[in-house]
Amino acid sequence: MPDVLTFGEAMLRLTPPGMRRLEQAHALDVWVAGAELNVAVGLARLGASAGWVSRLPANALGRRVVSHARANGVDTSGVAWSERGRLGLFFVEVGQAPRPSTTLYDRDDSAFAALDPAAFDWAELLQGARAFHTSGITPALSAACEQATEGALRAARAADCHTSYDLNFRGRLTTPAAARRCLERLAPAIDTLIASMGEIEAVLGIAGPPGDVAAQLRDALGIRRVVVSARIDSRDGLQLRHSALADGEVLERESPAFRTVDPLGGGDAFSAGFLLGLLEDGPGYGLEMAGAVAALKQSIPGDVAILVREEVEHLLDGGDGRTRR
Amino acid sequence: MPDVLTFGEAMLRLTPPGMRRLEQAHALDVWVAGAELNVAVGLARLGASAGWVSRLPANALGRRVVSHARANGVDTSGVAWSERGRLGLFFVEVGQAPRPSTTLYDRDDSAFAALDPAAFDWAELLQGARAFHTSGITPALSAACEQATEGALRAARAADCHTSYDLNFRGRLTTPAAARRCLERLAPAIDTLIASMGEIEAVLGIAGPPGDVAAQLRDALGIRRVVVSARIDSRDGLQLRHSALADGEVLERESPAFRTVDPLGGGDAFSAGFLLGLLEDGPGYGLEMAGAVAALKQSIPGDVAILVREEVEHLLDGGDGRTRR
Amino acid sequence: MPDVLTFGEAMLRLTPPGMRRLEQAHALDVWVAGAELNVAVGLARLGASAGWVSRLPANALGRRVVSHARANGVDTSGVAWSERGRLGLFFVEVGQAPRPSTTLYDRDDSAFAALDPAAFDWAELLQGARAFHTSGITPALSAACEQATEGALRAARAADCHTSYDLNFRGRLTTPAAARRCLERLAPAIDTLIASMGEIEAVLGIAGPPGDVAAQLRDALGIRRVVVSARIDSRDGLQLRHSALADGEVLERESPAFRTVDPLGGGDAFSAGFLLGLLEDGPGYGLEMAGAVAALKQSIPGDVAILVREEVEHLLDGGDGRTRR
Amino acid sequence: MPDVLTFGEAMLRLTPPGMRRLEQAHALDVWVAGAELNVAVGLARLGASAGWVSRLPANALGRRVVSHARANGVDTSGVAWSERGRLGLFFVEVGQAPRPSTTLYDRDDSAFAALDPAAFDWAELLQGARAFHTSGITPALSAACEQATEGALRAARAADCHTSYDLNFRGRLTTPAAARRCLERLAPAIDTLIASMGEIEAVLGIAGPPGDVAAQLRDALGIRRVVVSARIDSRDGLQLRHSALADGEVLERESPAFRTVDPLGGGDAFSAGFLLGLLEDGPGYGLEMAGAVAALKQSIPGDVAILVREEVEHLLDGGDGRTRR
Amino acid sequence: MPDVLTFGEAMLRLTPPGMRRLEQAHALDVWVAGAELNVAVGLARLGASAGWVSRLPANALGRRVVSHARANGVDTSGVAWSERGRLGLFFVEVGQAPRPSTTLYDRDDSAFAALDPAAFDWAELLQGARAFHTSGITPALSAACEQATEGALRAARAADCHTSYDLNFRGRLTTPAAARRCLERLAPAIDTLIASMGEIEAVLGIAGPPGDVAAQLRDALGIRRVVVSARIDSRDGLQLRHSALADGEVLERESPAFRTVDPLGGGDAFSAGFLLGLLEDGPGYGLEMAGAVAALKQSIPGDVAILVREEVEHLLDGGDGRTRR
Amino acid sequence: MPDVLTFGEAMLRLTPPGMRRLEQAHALDVWVAGAELNVAVGLARLGASAGWVSRLPANALGRRVVSHARANGVDTSGVAWSERGRLGLFFVEVGQAPRPSTTLYDRDDSAFAALDPAAFDWAELLQGARAFHTSGITPALSAACEQATEGALRAARAADCHTSYDLNFRGRLTTPAAARRCLERLAPAIDTLIASMGEIEAVLGIAGPPGDVAAQLRDALGIRRVVVSARIDSRDGLQLRHSALADGEVLERESPAFRTVDPLGGGDAFSAGFLLGLLEDGPGYGLEMAGAVAALKQSIPGDVAILVREEVEHLLDGGDGRTRR
Repeated sequence: MPDVLTFGEAMLRLTPPGMRRLEQAHALDVWVAGAELNVAVGLARLGASAGWVSRLPANALGRRVVSHARANGVDTSGVAWSERGRLGLFFVEVGQAPRPSTTLYDRDDSAFAALDPAAFDWAELLQGARAFHTSGITPALSAACEQATEGALRAARAADCHTSYDLNFRGRLTTPAAARRCLERLAPAIDTLIASMGEIEAVLGIAGPPGDVAAQLRDALGIRRVVVSARIDSRDGLQLRHSALADGEVLERESPAFRTVDPLGGGDAFSAGFLLGLLEDGPGYGLEMAGAVAALKQSIPGDVAILVREEVEHLLDGGDGRTRR
Repeated sequence: MPDVLTFGEAMLRLTPPGMRRLEQAHALDVWVAGAELNVAVGLARLGASAGWVSRLPANALGRRVVSHARANGVDTSGVAWSERGRLGLFFVEVGQAPRPSTTLYDRDDSAFAALDPAAFDWAELLQGARAFHTSGITPALSAACEQATEGALRAARAADCHTSYDLNFRGRLTTPAAARRCLERLAPAIDTLIASMGEIEAVLGIAGPPGDVAAQLRDALGIRRVVVSARIDSRDGLQLRHSALADGEVLERESPAFRTVDPLGGGDAFSAGFLLGLLEDGPGYGLEMAGAVAALKQSIPGDVAILVREEVEHLLDGGDGRTRR
Repeated sequence: MPDVLTFGEAMLRLTPPGMRRLEQAHALDVWVAGAELNVAVGLARLGASAGWVSRLPANALGRRVVSHARANGVDTSGVAWSERGRLGLFFVEVGQAPRPSTTLYDRDDSAFAALDPAAFDWAELLQGARAFHTSGITPALSAACEQATEGALRAARAADCHTSYDLNFRGRLTTPAAARRCLERLAPAIDTLIASMGEIEAVLGIAGPPGDVAAQLRDALGIRRVVVSARIDSRDGLQLRHSALADGEVLERESPAFRTVDPLGGGDAFSAGFLLGLLEDGPGYGLEMAGAVAALKQSIPGDVAILVREEVEHLLDGGDGRTRR
Repeated sequence: MPDVLTFGEAMLRLTPPGMRRLEQAHALDVWVAGAELNVAVGLARLGASAGWVSRLPANALGRRVVSHARANGVDTSGVAWSERGRLGLFFVEVGQAPRPSTTLYDRDDSAFAALDPAAFDWAELLQGARAFHTSGITPALSAACEQATEGALRAARAADCHTSYDLNFRGRLTTPAAARRCLERLAPAIDTLIASMGEIEAVLGIAGPPGDVAAQLRDALGIRRVVVSARIDSRDGLQLRHSALADGEVLERESPAFRTVDPLGGGDAFSAGFLLGLLEDGPGYGLEMAGAVAALKQSIPGDVAILVREEVEHLLDGGDGRTRR
Repeated sequence: MPDVLTFGEAMLRLTPPGMRRLEQAHALDVWVAGAELNVAVGLARLGASAGWVSRLPANALGRRVVSHARANGVDTSGVAWSERGRLGLFFVEVGQAPRPSTTLYDRDDSAFAALDPAAFDWAELLQGARAFHTSGITPALSAACEQATEGALRAARAADCHTSYDLNFRGRLTTPAAARRCLERLAPAIDTLIASMGEIEAVLGIAGPPGDVAAQLRDALGIRRVVVSARIDSRDGLQLRHSALADGEVLERESPAFRTVDPLGGGDAFSAGFLLGLLEDGPGYGLEMAGAVAALKQSIPGDVAILVREEVEHLLDGGDGRTRR
Repeated sequence: MPDVLTFGEAMLRLTPPGMRRLEQAHALDVWVAGAELNVAVGLARLGASAGWVSRLPANALGRRVVSHARANGVDTSGVAWSERGRLGLFFVEVGQAPRPSTTLYDRDDSAFAALDPAAFDWAELLQGARAFHTSGITPALSAACEQATEGALRAARAADCHTSYDLNFRGRLTTPAAARRCLERLAPAIDTLIASMGEIEAVLGIAGPPGDVAAQLRDALGIRRVVVSARIDSRDGLQLRHSALADGEVLERESPAFRTVDPLGGGDAFSAGFLLGLLEDGPGYGLEMAGAVAALKQSIPGDVAILVREEVEHLLDGGDGRTRR
C-alpha cells in the first residue's frame, strides 16, 4: 500500500484554448483535475509512493480519470466505482489582467458527492501509510462527504499517520461560515493545516504576521502546525512567500519568481511539494520543495505538476531559466 | 411572432475530433444541440419564420445556446432564464462500422427539466403562429416537462396551430412503456406524428407496411397523420425511405443517397424539412423536403442543417455531387 | 427599433494562430470584424439595444457576418444584401515586441464600398434611436460611402440622435489630408468626436494637454465634445489615460492596467463603453465604462468585447485579477 | 532554363477543416493553388525540370506562393512582382454526397489579372524549353490575360515547343460561349487539348465515343491531338477512363480506382502526369502516368500531387493499397 | 504478478493528421505503439491481468511510454530503464486507395535493441503467469534481442506458460530468410503461432487452404497450433477470415465487416482478443474475440484497441452499427 | 553560385504546442532547424544570395528539409543525398520562468554525421562565394564532420572567402574541453568568431570587458575579429548587448528590447544579420543588423527569422511596436 494517501473528488476540466472565452470556444481542452488527486500525482511523480481514494462513475469519463492517475504512477486501488451519478465537470477560462480567470462549476450530483461513508474501510486503506491528505473541498461537497472526511482523518490519526488539510476555500462552492464550521469539526484530527493568508482571513477572520496567525490558530482550533503562503509581486513576475509555523517556531521561505501559464493547481503542487519534503526531511525542506514545485507548476498547462525530481532540484540548486541544451 | 414555434431542451454536445474515443480525446469539439432547437434552426435557415421556447441557465453556457439560435435566425424571445440549474451536456463519440456512434448523456438536473409549467404563457407565445412542434424527448425529461408539453400542445390546438410530435425515442433516457404512456396522453392534441419504423415498433409494437401502420396508429391513438421513415442501404450509401400516411392515403418517397459525416441531427433535419414543405405546399412537398434536408444534413458536422434554400433545391432538381465551381 | 445604431463595413479577419507570421501559417483563425459592428456588438452585449446598418454580399461569408452580429444580440434588420461585390478581408499578424502586429487589407471592391447612398432610408432606420455612431473608416472606403456617412449623420442630427464619430485613422487606407478633409465636412453633424491623441496629431496637427486640444478642436472644427485617449506604460502593463472634453470642462480617467492578448478592437470597445455610459449616466460614467471595457477587451481574442455587464462592474468595483472560483 | 513552362494565376485556397461548412468554420486551412502552378509542381516533383510564369503582389501572400513553388522545385525566375493588385483567393468547402464540394471565388482584381501582356518576353522565357502549358482559366481572367495567353502560345509554337491547353471550363468564372470563342482563337497554336468529356460537351456541344469526338474536334478546331477523360464508378470507388486521340489513332486507358480525400487538383495532376509521360515516352506512357498521378492525387489533401516518382511507379507496377512497412 | 506477459519494444508513432503526407505536415499526432505493448494493452483493457517487459531510455519519451501502458492498466514493473540509447520512432502516413499507408522506421539504436539478455530474470518475471507473448519484430531488432526472445520463450515453456508468437513480418525491418531462420530457432518453444496467410507465404513459402497450411507448418516447424487470418472484401467493407488450426482440427470464423480509420494495430488487437478468449474458454472463443476486437480496432485512431469488454460483447451479440443513445 | 555558403546539419524540430511538456503532448509542431541552415535562410530572406551545403537522407524527411530551404530562397545544389542514415531530430519544450526551455537531442547516426569529407569538392562549391560560415555544432557531430569543417574553412581561406564561425557550444552535444580543442584546431582558418560571453567563458575560461576578451582571444587563438554578445534585462524585456572587436577597435551596440515567443534560433539570426551587414557595409552595420534581426527573431515561432528587409529597416529606423495598419 502507498506511503501517502489522498482523498477527494476528481473532475474533468474543460478549458477554451488560446485564452478564448467560453462563449467563443469551438473546442475545449480536456484535463483531469481535483485538488487531492493533483496532490497524489505531484507526490508520485516526484518519487513518493502515493495513492488516491475516491469514487467514480463507471463510464468512459470515470475511466479517463483513473487512466490519468495511473499514468502518473498513482495507486488507484482505493477507487470505488458507481453505476450511478456523474463525473463532475468544471469549465475554466484562463484570463489575463485585468480579466480574471474564472471557473464555472458543474459538479453537482457527482458519484463522489453521493458516496456512502460506510463503504470506505479506512483502516484497511491506510494500512502501511505514513500520511493522509485531504482538503476543504471534500467535506464541502455533501454531508456524506463531510462525514467520510471526518472518518478518514480520525482513522488516519488512529493509524499514526500524519494528517494534512488544505483549507482550499472556494466561494463558488461553500460559504466562509460553513468552511469554518467544518474546519472546527475536523481540526482535532488535523496535524498540519495548509492555507493561504487570504483564505485564513476570509474563513477565520485571522490576519497579521505569520507568528501571530499561528498562535491564534493554535488557540482557536488547536492545530499545532500551519503552513501559510501569500502571493507577492516580484521584479520577475510573481512569487510565493510561505511559512511553516509549528510549536512557536516560524520558518520562512520565498519561492522562485514565476509567470503564470495556467493558474490552476498551484496550491496542490505546493501541498505535494511540502508533504514530500516534510516526509523526507522535515518542514524546512518541505517549504523549499513547496515553493519550487508550486512555482514550476505555474508554467505547466493543466492542473498537475508534470515534473521529475531532477527538474525541481535543478531549480533549488539555483538553475536559471536559460534553455537547457 | 414566428410562424412556427418549437419547444424543448438544448444542450452542449462535446465530441472528440477525428473519430477518437472519449478516453483518447484531449480536446472536445463543442456544438449546441437539442432536437426541437435543431428543428427551429433548420426551419429558420430555409426561410421560415421560426421561434424556440426553452429555459436556460443564466451563465456563459446558456448564453452560448441563445447565440447559436439567434445566429441562425431563430427567435429566442420565448426563452426563460434561470439562476439555478445547469445546462445539460452530452458526449458523443462518432464511430465507424462496426463501432457504433454512442452518446453519454449528462443532462440531469438541467434548468430546463426543472421548469415550472405555469411559467409559460402559451396563448401569448403562440400568438400568430401557424405550427407548433415538439418531440418525445421533452416530456421524458421530468414530470414538469411532460405537463408543460401537454399544456403547449393543447394551447396550440386551441390556437388552431398545426401540432407535430417527433416520437424521438431514446433508450438511454426513457423506456418504451413510459414513451408509450406519454404518447397516449398527448395523442389527442397531435396532428402529425413523425417517427421511424423502428421507433414505432419499439414503443408501440406496431410493424408492417406503411398503410397498415397508419391504420393501426389511427385506431390505437387516434392520430390522423403519421410520417414514417426507414433507413435503407443503397448502392451509393444509405437512403431514407419515408411515407406520409393520412386519411387512408399513403405518399411514399425516397431520399437522395448519402454517406454520413455526422450521425446526429438527421431526424431533426427531416422534421424541419417536412414542416417547411407541409406549410408551403402540403405533405407531398413536405416529404420531398424532408428527404433532401435529412440527406444533406448527414454530410454536415454538428447537429444542425447548415444549409440555404438554394442548396436544397439544387439537390431536388437533380444536382449531383460534382464540385460546383 | 434599436436605441443605438452604427453604420460601417464588416470584414472577415484572418489571423495565423500562435503568433505565426502569414508566411508560416497553415491555418488561419477566422473572426468577423469591423469598427462600427464591433461597437454595436459591445453595446448589445452590455445591455443596450443596438443595431447595425451595412451592406453585405449575399453569400456564405456575408451570412457569416450577420450570424455573428445576431449571435451577439445586434439588430441586423438594417443590413442590405447585394448580389455583387465581395466581403472585404484583412489579414492580421499578432506580433510581440519588437515585432509589431500588422494588418494586410484586402477590402477593395467590397459590396459595402459599392453601396448606393440613396438606398438607405435613414429617417426610417433611425426611428426611435437615441444615438448614431460611425467612424472615419466608413467615409474613407469610397465616395459613395462618404456621401452615405454624411447623409446618416445629418439624418441623425435631424432626428435628435446623439452622433458620435471615432476618428479611426488608418494609414493603410487613407491619408492624413483626406481624413482631415472628410472630418471637416462631417464635423457640423458630429456631437462627440472620439480619437487617440496620436490620431489627432497625425490628422489635424493638434497636440498638447487635453484642455488645449479640446479648445483647438472646438475652434477648428466646431465639435463641442471630444473624447481623447492615450496609451501609457504602467507597472503592470499598459493603461489608457483618457479624457472627455466638453464645454470647457475636462474629465480625466485612467483605465485598469492590461496586457494585450489581441491588439485589435480595443478602440471599438472604448467607444462602446463610452456610449453605454454616456447614454446611461453622462460622460463621467462613459469614461469609466470606456476604460474598463477597453482594458478587458485587450485580454480577449478576436475583435469584439465578449463580456457581460457583471464583469465590467466587477472590475469597476475594484475586482483584481485573481481567479474567480 | 526549365524544360517545361506553365503560365497562369495562383491563389490562396482557404478550406474549412473536417468537412465543415464555411459558415461553421472558425479556422481555415491554407493552401496555395492554381491550375498551371499545380501542373508545374506535379512535373517538378516527378523529376521534370519545370518553371512557372506568373505575376504576384509584392506582399506576404505573394511571397507565400513563391515559397510553395520553390519548395516543390519549380523555377520561379519568370514570376513578375507587382506593387499593386491583390492575390486572388478562393474558399472551398469539401462536401460528401449528396452535398457537393463548392468553390467561392474571390479572385477579382488580382495582380495577375491586371498584367501587361507586353511585359512578358516569351522568347526569352521559353529559351531552352521543350513544352509550354496553360489552361482555359488563364485567358478567362481578363482581356489582358487572354492576349498574354495567345502571345505565349504563339511564341512557344515559334520556339518549337509542344503546347498544351487544358480546357478547364469553370462556370463560375466564364460562360460556355466565351470559353468556346477563346478556344477557337487559341486553337491554331495548340498541339494538345486536354479536357473532360463533360467540358467538351458543355463548351463545344460535342459528345460521343472518343474517336468521333476527336474527329469533330479536328474538323471544328484543327487541333490534332486531344486527351479526354471521364470519371466512372467502379467497384472500389471512382476511376478515370481516358483517351488520347491523335491522327486518327485512339489510345485508351483506365486509371486505378480511387476514393476522394480532396476533390481539387485532380485534373492538374492528370495534365502533369500526361506531359511527363508524353515527353519521356510518348502519348501511351503519358496516359498511363496521367491516370496514376491523378488517382493518387485524389487521396492527397490540398491542390497538388505531393508524390515522388517511385510512388507512381509502385502503383503502375500493380502495387495494391496495403500498408507499406 | 500478471497472468499474461508480453515482451517487446515500444516506440513513438508520429502521424500527420488529416491524411496529409509527411512533407505537408506541420504538426504530427503522437501515439505510443509497439506490437507486444499493444497486445498487453488490449488484454488489460478487456479484463485480463497483463504486464509488459521492455527497456526504455530514462527520459521524457520513455516516461511517456510507461504512462501510456499504466494508463491502460498494464503492469510495467518489468520495464528496465537505460541511461543510454534512444526511444525508437516511426512516422506513419495514413493513406487512402490507391495511395498506401506507409511507415518510415527510425528505430535504430534504441535502448531496447541494445538490451542485455542476461539482465532479464525471466523466472522471476514469469512467476504466476499463465501466458507469454511476443512477436517476430522483437528478435529482428538485434542479436541481443533475438537471444532475449529465445530465453524468454524457453523460460515460459519451463514455467508452464502458454507461449504465443505473432509472426509480424516487416519487410522494412528484416528479410524473409532472416525471419524464417529466426522462427525455426524459436519454434520449439512456441505453442501458438499467429500469422496472416500472406506472411506465412512470404516467410515460409507455404500457401493453400488452412488445413494444409497447418499440416505443413507442423511438419516444417513442429508448431502444434497456428492461427491464421486473411483480409477479404465484403459488401460492407473489409472482413477478416481467420482459423485456428490445432491437432488436425480446423476452426473457422469471420470477423464483422469493418472500414478502416487507422490501419495499424489490427493484428495486435487480433492477438489480444485471441489470447483473452483462449485463456477464458479455448480457441473457439479466442477466434471470436480475435475477430471482434480486430474489427473494432480498425475504427479507432492510434495503435491500440481502446475498448471495454461490454463493447466487444455487444458486437458479438449481433449489435449493429446504429448510434447507441 | 551563391555569395555566402554555410555548412552544417539540419534536423526536424518537434515541439509540443501551447507550452505543454513532452509528456503531455498529443501533437507536436514540426519545424526544420539547424544552426547553419538557419543562417542561410536568414541571409537569403534579407536579400543576400545564400547557399547551404549538407547531407540528407533520401526520404520524405530529407525532402522536407530541402523544401524548407528552397522555399526561403536558399540554394541547395550543394546538398548530398544519402540512401543510408537518418535525419536527426530534436524535441524542444518551450518553458516559462522558472521552468527552462529544454532540448532533447535525438540526432545520433544521422546521414550528415556519417558524411565522407572527401565527397565535398569545396573548391567547386565555393566558386564565386564571398563568405563561408559554419558553427561549432558541425565539427562536434563526428570526426568526419570535424575533418570536413576544417577542409571547408581552409578551402574558403584559399578562395579568399571571409570565414566565420559561431562557437555555438552545446553542453548536451560536446564538452568544453572538446569544443576548445576543436576551436584551436580550426582557429587559423577563421576570420570572425561569433560567440556569447557565456560560451567564451565556458569553453575558453576567458571573461571580462569586451576589449580584454578580444585581446585574450587574439593572443590565445590568433583570431583577429570577435563578435560577442550578452543577454541583459531591460525595462521592456530582454536585450542583447553586443560588440565587434577587431584590431584593437571595439564597436558596441544594444539591440532593441524583446520578449521571447520562441527561444531558439536567436543566435543564428544574429549571425545572419551580422554577416549581411558586414558584407554590405562593414562590422558596424553588421552589429546593427545582428541586433535587430536577433531581436525580431525572438518573436517568431520556429527556428528561423521569417522576415523581409523592410521590417528590419523599419525597426532600425526607430519603428515602435504599434500595430501597423
